[in-house]
Amino acid sequence: MIDLFLRKGAERRLRGGHLWVYSNEVDSKRSNLGDFEAGDLVVVRGSDGRLQGSAYMEPQSLICARLYSPHVEQAMNAEWFEQRLATALAVREAAFDQPYYRLVYGDSDGMPGLVVDRFGDYLVAQLHNAGLERYSELLQEALLSVLQPAGILLRTDSRARREQGLSTGSEVIYGEVPEEVSLQENGTKFLAPVHAGQKTGWFYDHRMSRARLAHWVSGKAVLDVYSYIGGWGVQAANAGAVSVCCLDSSATALEGVMKNAHLNDVGERVTTRKGSAPEQMAALHEEGARFDVIVLDPPAFIQRKKDLKKGINAYRRINELALRLLKPGGLLVSASCSMHLQRSDLILALQQAAVRAACGVRIVEQGGQGPDHPVHPAIAETEYLKSLFALKIEA
Amino acid sequence: MIDLFLRKGAERRLRGGHLWVYSNEVDSKRSNLGDFEAGDLVVVRGSDGRLQGSAYMEPQSLICARLYSPHVEQAMNAEWFEQRLATALAVREAAFDQPYYRLVYGDSDGMPGLVVDRFGDYLVAQLHNAGLERYSELLQEALLSVLQPAGILLRTDSRARREQGLSTGSEVIYGEVPEEVSLQENGTKFLAPVHAGQKTGWFYDHRMSRARLAHWVSGKAVLDVYSYIGGWGVQAANAGAVSVCCLDSSATALEGVMKNAHLNDVGERVTTRKGSAPEQMAALHEEGARFDVIVLDPPAFIQRKKDLKKGINAYRRINELALRLLKPGGLLVSASCSMHLQRSDLILALQQAAVRAACGVRIVEQGGQGPDHPVHPAIAETEYLKSLFALKIEA
Repeated sequence: MIDLFLRKGAERRLRGGHLWVYSNEVDSKRSNLGDFEAGDLVVVRGSDGRLQGSAYMEPQSLICARLYSPHVEQAMNAEWFEQRLATALAVREAAFDQPYYRLVYGDSDGMPGLVVDRFGDYLVAQLHNAGLERYSELLQEALLSVLQPAGILLRTDSRARREQGLSTGSEVIYGEVPEEVSLQENGTKFLAPVHAGQKTGWFYDHRMSRARLAHWVSGKAVLDVYSYIGGWGVQAANAGAVSVCCLDSSATALEGVMKNAHLNDVGERVTTRKGSAPEQMAALHEEGARFDVIVLDPPAFIQRKKDLKKGINAYRRINELALRLLKPGGLLVSASCSMHLQRSDLILALQQAAVRAACGVRIVEQGGQGPDHPVHPAIAETEYLKSLFALKIEA
Repeated sequence: MIDLFLRKGAERRLRGGHLWVYSNEVDSKRSNLGDFEAGDLVVVRGSDGRLQGSAYMEPQSLICARLYSPHVEQAMNAEWFEQRLATALAVREAAFDQPYYRLVYGDSDGMPGLVVDRFGDYLVAQLHNAGLERYSELLQEALLSVLQPAGILLRTDSRARREQGLSTGSEVIYGEVPEEVSLQENGTKFLAPVHAGQKTGWFYDHRMSRARLAHWVSGKAVLDVYSYIGGWGVQAANAGAVSVCCLDSSATALEGVMKNAHLNDVGERVTTRKGSAPEQMAALHEEGARFDVIVLDPPAFIQRKKDLKKGINAYRRINELALRLLKPGGLLVSASCSMHLQRSDLILALQQAAVRAACGVRIVEQGGQGPDHPVHPAIAETEYLKSLFALKIEA
């Protein structure tokens, strides 16, 4: 493995536990980025020559090297993949009774650029960059060795890949993977469209917040906005909600909602509504519809830091619409998966929405990523998910 | 009710939902603070005369007026107390099956300066300032009317009161209140020393995090540091921990631990250790003791903002000691109740502790205040409690 030398002082962040090397931190006299190809393995060294760890190169990216083994010189070989996967598996098995979870969450599991979701015997993987892609066969062998899956699907249609000009599409790289696979979350059954659905086909990240939602919905009328295939809504129906309306812009997603509702024998309490969330919330308000519980789980409105202000306005707007649709005393679950939006920003947007809707709110619970999306305390970017459970009260 | 006029622009924060008026925000030409006495009721008006809400005065304090009814002119009378208590009660009854919770949490329940904890038929109240104290009889009557308690204990020994030079002590203001009262939390029984214990005798605020702890302790050896009377430790034993060591500097608290352990028939799995937490953790390390799960729930190390840096060092130090005592793969629950410490500060302190202890950590769950300590989204000070559930891994 070749050395990658850093400028003076640049190793400090790595010593604090971070795993990223930015291209402007490389000592270009000793290490010329032009000499590297994506996926080259390097030993990262401080300006004093001290070993910082092993990394793979992404010379074309702002983050030009990603540490996968801090402190040591270690090749990214079959044994390394197996050991990393076994560790990740042990964490999940300690946290969950059933084999439905995010098995690998990138940097937090010491496998930068890699995401693997597990649906029982099926695995869905995403490789977010070119460097890692060189090791996809080693990864596949390690997955087979550690988990003996019936099939592995590689989803290569992520935004990160598009931005890097990498190939996009989906490919079954081992065995067979049906169009829809089964999973259970908090005791509710789902079918996830792993080939055609969003991201890996399912969002495991909100599982803990969805479990908490069950405590608030018995006997209630629920609106699930940006429902996708009913992760929140069908669980709410299963927890005793008397009615659940799932709202999404995708007809395919709403077909998934009803399929999942019937799978749990709650189809007669679930309805769907197709359209843009702000438009449909405004229309529901016009129609005089009111709800006891509303879940707002929008896609990331803030993809880049420069979109922060515009994004905050969008969060405030949908929260205001939801508060107007909510009965007095009702519960709003307001979520955000925008990594650039701080939790305090979301709380502020919620308060501003309340002022505009001429009501008050009090936050009674807060949620975030479950144990299968561990937060690396030195890498703030590994924490992205927020949920606020807020009661609507008088202003 | 007399008017309290604000300087130009000072009403903006109140219009955003905040409830505090600082003394330098008062228009001293139109409203002389020297003319008011603690507890005087005022109508707060912007410089343009617009009504902002009703407040009681604390003319001697930095926060010289506290809004209890925004937007309207409303006396703090019997009906007002009854309505506020009924609303607070409804929120708790929606969230909890049993009558053990913080019934009133100050500003968040629209009753600034007031805390009431409920232990079934017994209430323990704290009045944190002189202004509110003038209304203690009205409060008492409203508590009797809404809750029909068997006894009400007034704890007047808070730090806030001492700093204001108010009387300190404890007084049964209605009925009878035994030295220890019963409560249940997450299915575990406790006796809380409401007369002689810390604050109101019990800390309901961590109940949700303690419920989550139950999922991680079965078959494990647990160390509960700053245990007080065993809120975490006895619940861990009840959830199947094979051994629990409760560490506290107070012999009385440790007697309470064993009483509570026996109350749940887990006395044979619980031991106590008396002494300073850092010293005893270091001693345990010397003795070669190691644990699967460690809970660190220290008192607030940061009482004032100026103590932030020193406080962060103290959090880092105890987290480092705990990580050294933890087995590889073990779980550290690291909490802070310091309002001045941001969650991100605690995460940073944990990461720095890990670097010093030559290990890594990954945060798998995070907790905060339960629904009986609602967060007012316009008043950041109403959110103070943090817990991090972190797995110890290789560096």
